[in-house]
Amino acid sequence: MPTLAEIAARIPGLAVSPAHGACSVTGVGALDTATPEQISFVTSAKHWPRAQASLAGAFVLPPALAFDADRPALIAANPLAAFARITALFHPEPSLRAGIHPSAVVDPSAQIFAPCEIGPLVVIEAGVQIGANTRIGAACVIGAGCVIGPDSRIFPKVTLYADTQIGARVRIHSGAVIGSDGFGNALEDGHWLKIPQIGRVIVGDDCEIGANTCIDRGALADTVIGNGVRLDNLIHIAHNCVIGDDTAMAACVGIAGSTTIGQRCQIGGAAMIIGHLTLGDEVMVSAGTFIGKSLPQPGVYTSVQPQQPHAEWLKNIAHLRHLDRLVDRVRTLEKAEKPLSSKESS
Amino acid sequence: MPTLAEIAARIPGLAVSPAHGACSVTGVGALDTATPEQISFVTSAKHWPRAQASLAGAFVLPPALAFDADRPALIAANPLAAFARITALFHPEPSLRAGIHPSAVVDPSAQIFAPCEIGPLVVIEAGVQIGANTRIGAACVIGAGCVIGPDSRIFPKVTLYADTQIGARVRIHSGAVIGSDGFGNALEDGHWLKIPQIGRVIVGDDCEIGANTCIDRGALADTVIGNGVRLDNLIHIAHNCVIGDDTAMAACVGIAGSTTIGQRCQIGGAAMIIGHLTLGDEVMVSAGTFIGKSLPQPGVYTSVQPQQPHAEWLKNIAHLRHLDRLVDRVRTLEKAEKPLSSKESS
Amino acid sequence: MPTLAEIAARIPGLAVSPAHGACSVTGVGALDTATPEQISFVTSAKHWPRAQASLAGAFVLPPALAFDADRPALIAANPLAAFARITALFHPEPSLRAGIHPSAVVDPSAQIFAPCEIGPLVVIEAGVQIGANTRIGAACVIGAGCVIGPDSRIFPKVTLYADTQIGARVRIHSGAVIGSDGFGNALEDGHWLKIPQIGRVIVGDDCEIGANTCIDRGALADTVIGNGVRLDNLIHIAHNCVIGDDTAMAACVGIAGSTTIGQRCQIGGAAMIIGHLTLGDEVMVSAGTFIGKSLPQPGVYTSVQPQQPHAEWLKNIAHLRHLDRLVDRVRTLEKAEKPLSSKESS
Repeated sequence: MPTLAEIAARIPGLAVSPAHGACSVTGVGALDTATPEQISFVTSAKHWPRAQASLAGAFVLPPALAFDADRPALIAANPLAAFARITALFHPEPSLRAGIHPSAVVDPSAQIFAPCEIGPLVVIEAGVQIGANTRIGAACVIGAGCVIGPDSRIFPKVTLYADTQIGARVRIHSGAVIGSDGFGNALEDGHWLKIPQIGRVIVGDDCEIGANTCIDRGALADTVIGNGVRLDNLIHIAHNCVIGDDTAMAACVGIAGSTTIGQRCQIGGAAMIIGHLTLGDEVMVSAGTFIGKSLPQPGVYTSVQPQQPHAEWLKNIAHLRHLDRLVDRVRTLEKAEKPLSSKESS
Repeated sequence: MPTLAEIAARIPGLAVSPAHGACSVTGVGALDTATPEQISFVTSAKHWPRAQASLAGAFVLPPALAFDADRPALIAANPLAAFARITALFHPEPSLRAGIHPSAVVDPSAQIFAPCEIGPLVVIEAGVQIGANTRIGAACVIGAGCVIGPDSRIFPKVTLYADTQIGARVRIHSGAVIGSDGFGNALEDGHWLKIPQIGRVIVGDDCEIGANTCIDRGALADTVIGNGVRLDNLIHIAHNCVIGDDTAMAACVGIAGSTTIGQRCQIGGAAMIIGHLTLGDEVMVSAGTFIGKSLPQPGVYTSVQPQQPHAEWLKNIAHLRHLDRLVDRVRTLEKAEKPLSSKESS
Repeated sequence: MPTLAEIAARIPGLAVSPAHGACSVTGVGALDTATPEQISFVTSAKHWPRAQASLAGAFVLPPALAFDADRPALIAANPLAAFARITALFHPEPSLRAGIHPSAVVDPSAQIFAPCEIGPLVVIEAGVQIGANTRIGAACVIGAGCVIGPDSRIFPKVTLYADTQIGARVRIHSGAVIGSDGFGNALEDGHWLKIPQIGRVIVGDDCEIGANTCIDRGALADTVIGNGVRLDNLIHIAHNCVIGDDTAMAACVGIAGSTTIGQRCQIGGAAMIIGHLTLGDEVMVSAGTFIGKSLPQPGVYTSVQPQQPHAEWLKNIAHLRHLDRLVDRVRTLEKAEKPLSSKESS
């Protein structure tokens, strides 16, 4: 049951509101559900009314709200990041249970640096290297020749195909499949001939990969996921994609083959990006958006069509199929209106 | 080889067509493929011509078609539901094989109420509770502290993260991942800092969850799936969503974080709903639709753009990018037409 | 380190460029990254400039480029297919390690034709039949009564539900779930009643199925995947679909129930096809396209809306919601313009 002063002593960049250093909290909570024993957080003045109605015993606040902090508070330039660190203080990762579970099937040629936690019913094939302080959850399959860096956490039932490389401090969630064959097929006499996929997947340091996400190995060269990348659930990354450092993708995104995405991009959920494109750094793609051409410049790009009540949609959508005709009709009207200067037609 | 009278005696609400009670059938079939030994079904008069061409030996019919039943029939107010029950009569669930397979890895602190079926190579961690008559398929991983109600069926290779709660009579299909970390990240100096996800997933009674579907645990509060919910395959439910009772979602749907969906909603396949929205009860979302704002009222909502032959699409879609300009042009024409009363412009 | 002449001797249809038969290569590479010891390929004249800049020691070229081949080359009518075969020459499938791993749980009634490779921690239930030269990767679960043809490769952690049939020379990638229940539910008094799914999944010969792809079993009849079909990752095929021979689907596609797709179709990534439709042979569906009606004719069909900078999109998309009104306004203008002949109005 640490005091605010004790929390501030453990997390850099936190200031305690005057006279509240001895106030103690037992955990963290959301504004709407926090109890008087919990600390919550506010990122901007917009949410301050909700905070005032909150039962939370303390708040993490931005400097701009510090003046309002007649209630116990920790002041942080980045309240969300500070709250993340406070949450980790109260809810640390479970400690590593060093050792290899007797039910795991581990090839004798695998190099596993102690301490490591290898869970029950894990399969580790020949030549695998696993760094120290890494934990491999139950029922994972780590293919021959894979390398996993130190301090990583692979949750249960992850599959790494042969020769996949994973960096340090990486988290991979259950059901993810990394290194499966890219979708390479040559059409020959009306049938598909498989093109062997001999590249690898290289995942950098400090990445997190979501549940049931798939990253295919490269056809000839490698598929590369940079450092600090965040991939949510059910994402598809096709062969030979290159994803820049610190890029984040929300769930259900699909990236087709050989597309390169820059650093610090944010790709909204269910966005779809076709193959052989290049997105520059700091490109933001809205949820549900289809990207059909390269986007070298930073910015926000969108294509979705918002919902309407079905009857209204029916009336409008029919015309979308004849938009070309409608433009012609407007052009005709414009010519009739001003026969001498038809600058309006496009 | 039960008779129609015997079937009617076992399923409430069925009436037998006159003089056909002794007619017997050996199983169920679709209208187009049923044999004379099988019973099929018709839900409305629209399908009656197909039924007349069918070889089926008997039919489940709605009352409105009963007069036509010169062929053997069972009359039901809800023919589809009656047919589902008849199908279950001929194809009951395989009976439970009580016991824990010797290859399963079960923590001694787990409480498993007999009779239960724990399949081969299952992992059950500390403190798990499993209700009676529940079966856990091969290679499932049930994380520490999970609770699964009675009479549930977890198919092979399902992963439940720690502290997930599953109700009674729930079915979860292979590859589903429940309780993985929500996608919570704070941006700090251009890098992502993980926000620990300390909420849980709570699944109610009588739910069915499809293959490779993912439901993330809450960030602070819980992600909640109500009673009687139906989720198809490859669905993503993000952290802190709340899904109301008896809501159904078809495959490939994505629901972003903190969205609340009401009761008895139907979400079409591949629909995408952004975060922090509220959908009321009985909202129907068409397949492929993007929902970008809250929908408090019942109704059908749609946004998809139907396919066209590619050449036509090319001509029309170009104008969509300049629709604003087109509206301006029409407004200009309207002003020229009636300079004194421009009520038409929007 | 084979020579071009030796490669040409092993792969039908390859001609060696004059005077280069003795040139040898050690492997394959992409145009941009190949070393002088590697062979690369060019499919059309469009890529020839990149080839001229390439360090590759040899190329596979189409006949139209043979005249340019002052550099060592193999000439092939279908350079991509030839390159696939050359790649397989340098990177053959790992040889089969015959036998059943001692950690596998195999029902004694299963028939496994030698030689077969059954990996660690595999579960094979009662009555399964597996053809010769097939390998079942680690941690697969093969349900009761499944049949898998010869020369197939099932990668780790695939789940086949009971009674699934898989042909010869089929590859199935990790996390795929085949034969899970179709999404069949009858609404009864506001609740969903499960309709038992008693059909099977039948997969033909020479298919490849991607990671985490799901194919549901039929409701009454079977779900059928033809011969030579290619399915990428994270695809959903609903109950009772029929997919024609040699059809290919890119990742994240969803096909709703009872839809029939012809032969040699190509379905782009993230396309969505609703249920009970029929697509003819050689239908091409663009990436991200929504198919809402049957398409009996061959051709390319598209519906996506391309991205725009967000501010432009905001201006244009608002008008899409009022397109019907805009058409009315144009019609009004047309009537005013030519009151006697309003042929332009649609």
